[in-house]
Amino acid sequence: MGNHARTTAATAPTERLRRVRAVSERLCAPLAVEDHVIQSMPDVSPPKWHLAHVSWFFEAFLLKPYLPGYRTPEPLYDLLFNSYYETHGTPFPRIRRGLLSRPTVAEVLDFRRHVDAGLAELLAAPPAEHADEIARRLELGLHHEQQHQELLLMDIKHILAQNPLCPAYRRDLPVAPPAPAQQPGWHAWPAGLYETGHAGDGFAFDCEQPRHRVFLDAFALARWPVSNGDYLAFIMDGGYARPELWLADGWAHIQQEGWLAPLYWRHGEDGWQEFTLGGLCPLDDQAPVCHLSFYEADAYARWAGARLPSEAEWEVAAQAASPTGNFLDSDYLHPLATAPQGEGPQQLFGDVWEWTASAYRPYPGFRPLPGSLGEYNGKFMSGQMVLRGGCCATPADHIRASYRNFFYPHQRWPFTGLRLAREA
Amino acid sequence: MGNHARTTAATAPTERLRRVRAVSERLCAPLAVEDHVIQSMPDVSPPKWHLAHVSWFFEAFLLKPYLPGYRTPEPLYDLLFNSYYETHGTPFPRIRRGLLSRPTVAEVLDFRRHVDAGLAELLAAPPAEHADEIARRLELGLHHEQQHQELLLMDIKHILAQNPLCPAYRRDLPVAPPAPAQQPGWHAWPAGLYETGHAGDGFAFDCEQPRHRVFLDAFALARWPVSNGDYLAFIMDGGYARPELWLADGWAHIQQEGWLAPLYWRHGEDGWQEFTLGGLCPLDDQAPVCHLSFYEADAYARWAGARLPSEAEWEVAAQAASPTGNFLDSDYLHPLATAPQGEGPQQLFGDVWEWTASAYRPYPGFRPLPGSLGEYNGKFMSGQMVLRGGCCATPADHIRASYRNFFYPHQRWPFTGLRLAREA
Amino acid sequence: MGNHARTTAATAPTERLRRVRAVSERLCAPLAVEDHVIQSMPDVSPPKWHLAHVSWFFEAFLLKPYLPGYRTPEPLYDLLFNSYYETHGTPFPRIRRGLLSRPTVAEVLDFRRHVDAGLAELLAAPPAEHADEIARRLELGLHHEQQHQELLLMDIKHILAQNPLCPAYRRDLPVAPPAPAQQPGWHAWPAGLYETGHAGDGFAFDCEQPRHRVFLDAFALARWPVSNGDYLAFIMDGGYARPELWLADGWAHIQQEGWLAPLYWRHGEDGWQEFTLGGLCPLDDQAPVCHLSFYEADAYARWAGARLPSEAEWEVAAQAASPTGNFLDSDYLHPLATAPQGEGPQQLFGDVWEWTASAYRPYPGFRPLPGSLGEYNGKFMSGQMVLRGGCCATPADHIRASYRNFFYPHQRWPFTGLRLAREA
Amino acid sequence: MGNHARTTAATAPTERLRRVRAVSERLCAPLAVEDHVIQSMPDVSPPKWHLAHVSWFFEAFLLKPYLPGYRTPEPLYDLLFNSYYETHGTPFPRIRRGLLSRPTVAEVLDFRRHVDAGLAELLAAPPAEHADEIARRLELGLHHEQQHQELLLMDIKHILAQNPLCPAYRRDLPVAPPAPAQQPGWHAWPAGLYETGHAGDGFAFDCEQPRHRVFLDAFALARWPVSNGDYLAFIMDGGYARPELWLADGWAHIQQEGWLAPLYWRHGEDGWQEFTLGGLCPLDDQAPVCHLSFYEADAYARWAGARLPSEAEWEVAAQAASPTGNFLDSDYLHPLATAPQGEGPQQLFGDVWEWTASAYRPYPGFRPLPGSLGEYNGKFMSGQMVLRGGCCATPADHIRASYRNFFYPHQRWPFTGLRLAREA
Repeated sequence: MGNHARTTAATAPTERLRRVRAVSERLCAPLAVEDHVIQSMPDVSPPKWHLAHVSWFFEAFLLKPYLPGYRTPEPLYDLLFNSYYETHGTPFPRIRRGLLSRPTVAEVLDFRRHVDAGLAELLAAPPAEHADEIARRLELGLHHEQQHQELLLMDIKHILAQNPLCPAYRRDLPVAPPAPAQQPGWHAWPAGLYETGHAGDGFAFDCEQPRHRVFLDAFALARWPVSNGDYLAFIMDGGYARPELWLADGWAHIQQEGWLAPLYWRHGEDGWQEFTLGGLCPLDDQAPVCHLSFYEADAYARWAGARLPSEAEWEVAAQAASPTGNFLDSDYLHPLATAPQGEGPQQLFGDVWEWTASAYRPYPGFRPLPGSLGEYNGKFMSGQMVLRGGCCATPADHIRASYRNFFYPHQRWPFTGLRLAREA
Repeated sequence: MGNHARTTAATAPTERLRRVRAVSERLCAPLAVEDHVIQSMPDVSPPKWHLAHVSWFFEAFLLKPYLPGYRTPEPLYDLLFNSYYETHGTPFPRIRRGLLSRPTVAEVLDFRRHVDAGLAELLAAPPAEHADEIARRLELGLHHEQQHQELLLMDIKHILAQNPLCPAYRRDLPVAPPAPAQQPGWHAWPAGLYETGHAGDGFAFDCEQPRHRVFLDAFALARWPVSNGDYLAFIMDGGYARPELWLADGWAHIQQEGWLAPLYWRHGEDGWQEFTLGGLCPLDDQAPVCHLSFYEADAYARWAGARLPSEAEWEVAAQAASPTGNFLDSDYLHPLATAPQGEGPQQLFGDVWEWTASAYRPYPGFRPLPGSLGEYNGKFMSGQMVLRGGCCATPADHIRASYRNFFYPHQRWPFTGLRLAREA
Repeated sequence: MGNHARTTAATAPTERLRRVRAVSERLCAPLAVEDHVIQSMPDVSPPKWHLAHVSWFFEAFLLKPYLPGYRTPEPLYDLLFNSYYETHGTPFPRIRRGLLSRPTVAEVLDFRRHVDAGLAELLAAPPAEHADEIARRLELGLHHEQQHQELLLMDIKHILAQNPLCPAYRRDLPVAPPAPAQQPGWHAWPAGLYETGHAGDGFAFDCEQPRHRVFLDAFALARWPVSNGDYLAFIMDGGYARPELWLADGWAHIQQEGWLAPLYWRHGEDGWQEFTLGGLCPLDDQAPVCHLSFYEADAYARWAGARLPSEAEWEVAAQAASPTGNFLDSDYLHPLATAPQGEGPQQLFGDVWEWTASAYRPYPGFRPLPGSLGEYNGKFMSGQMVLRGGCCATPADHIRASYRNFFYPHQRWPFTGLRLAREA
Repeated sequence: MGNHARTTAATAPTERLRRVRAVSERLCAPLAVEDHVIQSMPDVSPPKWHLAHVSWFFEAFLLKPYLPGYRTPEPLYDLLFNSYYETHGTPFPRIRRGLLSRPTVAEVLDFRRHVDAGLAELLAAPPAEHADEIARRLELGLHHEQQHQELLLMDIKHILAQNPLCPAYRRDLPVAPPAPAQQPGWHAWPAGLYETGHAGDGFAFDCEQPRHRVFLDAFALARWPVSNGDYLAFIMDGGYARPELWLADGWAHIQQEGWLAPLYWRHGEDGWQEFTLGGLCPLDDQAPVCHLSFYEADAYARWAGARLPSEAEWEVAAQAASPTGNFLDSDYLHPLATAPQGEGPQQLFGDVWEWTASAYRPYPGFRPLPGSLGEYNGKFMSGQMVLRGGCCATPADHIRASYRNFFYPHQRWPFTGLRLAREA
């Protein structure tokens, strides 16, 4: 790295830090104070908890180890805002996050200011012997905060959806432009030895690495994600009542939960509606279906005579695509029908996370980060499935073709959809 | 009722209404907005829910039936703030009250203003044919709101106690005067036919009626409630580890919950402390023990070679006592050791609710109120035990010798204590 | 007690012991070995457990303390067959009784023989200084075994009812004679001071004592228990869908469990049927309704404009009646419609246990038995309701007017019904 | 297939059927009738249920469709003994299998005779147009029954282990010969494109197919499975108390369950013992560790600085090995330390199922069987992990290198162990 680059490396992070941190607070600005407190299910965290936790991350992994004389405003925050780092003290029980009225939202914002000031001090003169590690952890902390920006929107949506008053998060969301009718189709790849996993200098999580070879049989991916209209046909065909379409765990789950449609769909006198961050809306048949569990995605694919793509298939397709799309930055905060872009598969990036057929497991030669940060990803490698491509709540500069998201197969409060695959 | 009395009846309720309503809001004034939202366990309601519900009660039972042209600010409030009146629509599920960030605290206070205005209008010119019923329901609504004032303090204490930060509700609570050492002793009553239950013109709940005869064997009541020091001796004697002292349900419950002391007691490096509405405090050995379940009260009594009084025994004793004591109005918000007042049993009223040996069941000839208001008390007459005397969070003008409070035997978040009884 | 009486006292117990013990085994004779093993819900015990437990009771409280040189065939039985005597070692967890395939039925019968032999030896020459206590404990052990005879039939019925094959316990039950149509009516008692509780020399449990005075307002009891036909009218009138008829706990319970009729009622193509110990049978409209929870009994009474009797009212009525009726000894093993006997209330004894309005609580001056046997009754005095009169599965010589049975208000696998009461 | 082969195909199955069916009954012969009835946890089925279910499989998929005039002895068996074929009626709820005392063991054996007779009749003269399908289903039915033979032993062991009496399944198990000390070591394979999945004419389940190419990086497998002694070192090193060694789901699970050692290990005064099918035994340090969950296997591997093999790595290694070892047929019914056989990895087959790092998911191009039999394997492809190699309870002729067993990561009542892998 040359001299110029080093200067940039010294300046840019401060500015990037400022911008990323500002986004989190901007996302909470439309909320009432009361909205910040609710934990609507164990998977959800109160918005003020997110605001505090991402700051705790910087405090615990940057300020306390590297900023001499740093003093926390409240030692108990190290307990309250530790999410799951068991090797870093005892985290406050996740399911009790909604029982904490204090610190208040204002006090959490004060904590953010305090951490921001500490980071500014640290980055102004990082101790030379730790400069590389500090840069690495700062980068990780920024990506961590971006992940929580998406979680904030997922959680806010879930919180507001509990309320019979159907409060909108924002009434001023932009209106999507009309999109032409989609031409269905498939794109095929030949059998062969491919490479997947992160390559190059840019940031990637440990779980995206190492880059490695994988053999794939010939396969094809659908040109478009599955749409609301497609999914409605599955429902109308009795999809939720036909056990032969479902994985056994999925069948048991939908029976127990009484699921008959995607999360946030509601059937009323005026037909199907969807609860969105802009409030209740009529369903757009052409937009990608969203808020499906893996079980539902898998059942839909079986009903359609297809299957879900493996994560390697998806990544091979995405390596050739531009990582652009309907992300957080476009501010729609909802998946949209869009006009086609280029020749390849459409909407691989943005709109909805696409469930893959792949369990979230380590790549060959996977090495977790050292120390407590090794708990970041590796310990979640059981029971979860990989999703790819980002969604309308993901910051655009947070995503890449090699990005591996993961959720349990029953979870559907993320912005989750699917794309069909088949043998070619 | 003479002319003068009628004028008073027309004026006084408005003023009483104003005063009672103001107390509820004053009790919430020390809270942060965030504190209003939490439901720390299914038994607890968020403070803003209490503020709204007591207003809904007036709306549902006074304004909607009797004030022509009354319009609710939000029809869904009739769902959200209906506590348990199954014959009045479908109440929003109790266990989900903590999932409602909206209406906000400010909107709830607006709702209170709206209901206050409606009540003022109604009471200014009540329709003559309903005037008596309106007066009765107003009185009931005021007592109902007073009950929720105590619930507010119970719930606020429980909410704040979840937080490792141990926030105090108020830092400005008055300091109790020192009390002389208590002289233990007993007061005896002869066997005989007594009368219990409400008599006279004043307000009483349906469950306190009718007045009826009851035969009691000779009995004695302890001069003082059981103190923290007394209870500590029970703990030190292995009380929580000796099954022979416990009811079977109680033994199972303390095993399952891991109880080793009253709720809010904490044992730290400096000995026993108590979480109070003023924050963490050292335990006062002489003050009445508080926040016991019925199971613990019963086990203590067995350990002490005594028993709990029946509710009739308690009431017979209380009929001769002045219903004064350490109530909400004294603003201590905590049970206190006090100097003796008069010759009889001390502290029958105020400080702590006293568990009795009596299940909460209907009196002979009990008649519930007609209509939905019949659900107020009668339907809770199974599985609960009667408590008597009011506590430090009860409004002073809300209590009487015939007042029957009731909780499940495992509940201990009310201000509950006990007094011993024995055969005389 | 004279010489003659002493001889009788020395002989009779051995014979009574032989007869009581034989009944337990006779009750299990129609079972397959497989039927002895099942615990169909936590409240139920496997039949072979009952056979062993009643023997353990004699072993633990008679043989081990009083028979020098007694050796148990298996020391672990003291753990496995201790039901709930926490002060006598650690009982094997109740909910795991159905996980024990060993000892086998044959081994349990061997254990019974072993205990019988020990008892014979002990009773042949009881140590003089313990003779009275031995006699008392033997009597208690016999009544204990009789209680388990009724439990055996309750549990066997519940076990067989789980099976879609609807197996009958016995196909050879006697056919009940036809009964004339019932003439409804009421019997009244004046207000006054009455005495209830056990009096006299005969055996009674500690909880039936002491005899004590109780004041009762004037009351009336229905001439007959509520019949299946009566209860059907309640169902047809929407009884299970009208919250105003139910205690709050009851309403919550029937919602959660989806109850729409008494336990064992089934509605099929041919109308209502009842699962009985003789298999599936058509419902007899005139027979007493059976297998109701307290909640259902209470709701029925409210629907009928009446109430349940208090246990004192019931006992006052029963003191004048002959304790005869359809008991275990008549071998019908099902409640029956019968012809009237005498002038008073009919079927007070036998057929169905009658839920009362009274919580199971200690009588004034109650003293439990000393030692571990004090756990027999007293520790269950919370959360349960009193039932009176015995049922078709109760041994005839086990019942008395003062007998207090008790169950939780949601339990309905005993043979439970009700009789209406009202103010007179 | 030539003429001779066809004759063989017509005869051999009958004989194989006879032999396989006899094994199931022989396995139950040492049981008491009572042992056949117990369901010790939801995953376990009562032994008599297994005996009936495998017969139902033949009835449902062979006799009813292909044997004209076949009559079932009891139509409800089609409900009671359907395990999970949702497209074939409504299976009796799995968690209620332990509530069925009827049919009795004797009646189940009668049902087996009845089905055997039907199969004999069908196989004597199979309708020509269905002969191939009948042969295929018969083969499937035999392998199905073999799977249940292993389940029988797993379940019997679990049932007996609940009992404080520690009953042995058999006291006459053969004594294992002493084995020389193991020489640890690794076997390596180069990176390359390999083929896995079933190939050839023999029977294989649908999930083992199709054969397909997979690219593997260079890897090494341990020469021996992990032994009890190895695992003890992990325990002694605080393995169960160090969160950094565990997957998050695993850590949560061991906390909740209080696990501190493999299932069936017990620590007493004489050190570690193991409950086996022969009763309680001292732990053999050199024998393969058994009854581990995937979580424990994964944590052990991390502690040892290694990892679990992928299923493809395992299969590549096993393709070169002889599928012989300590199976059901050797009658030890417990994993053993053995002398080395040949040069390659030892004990790949038999003794313990080896957890792999691979989630149980479909192979590329997987096609489930048509109709209800498609539910056999495919619908379980979520949430479970693959195990390889068979165990001491697996019939020797049931296993192959391509065989994929699967369990949830928390399950440890199968005979499960592990072998380490690492990059080469």
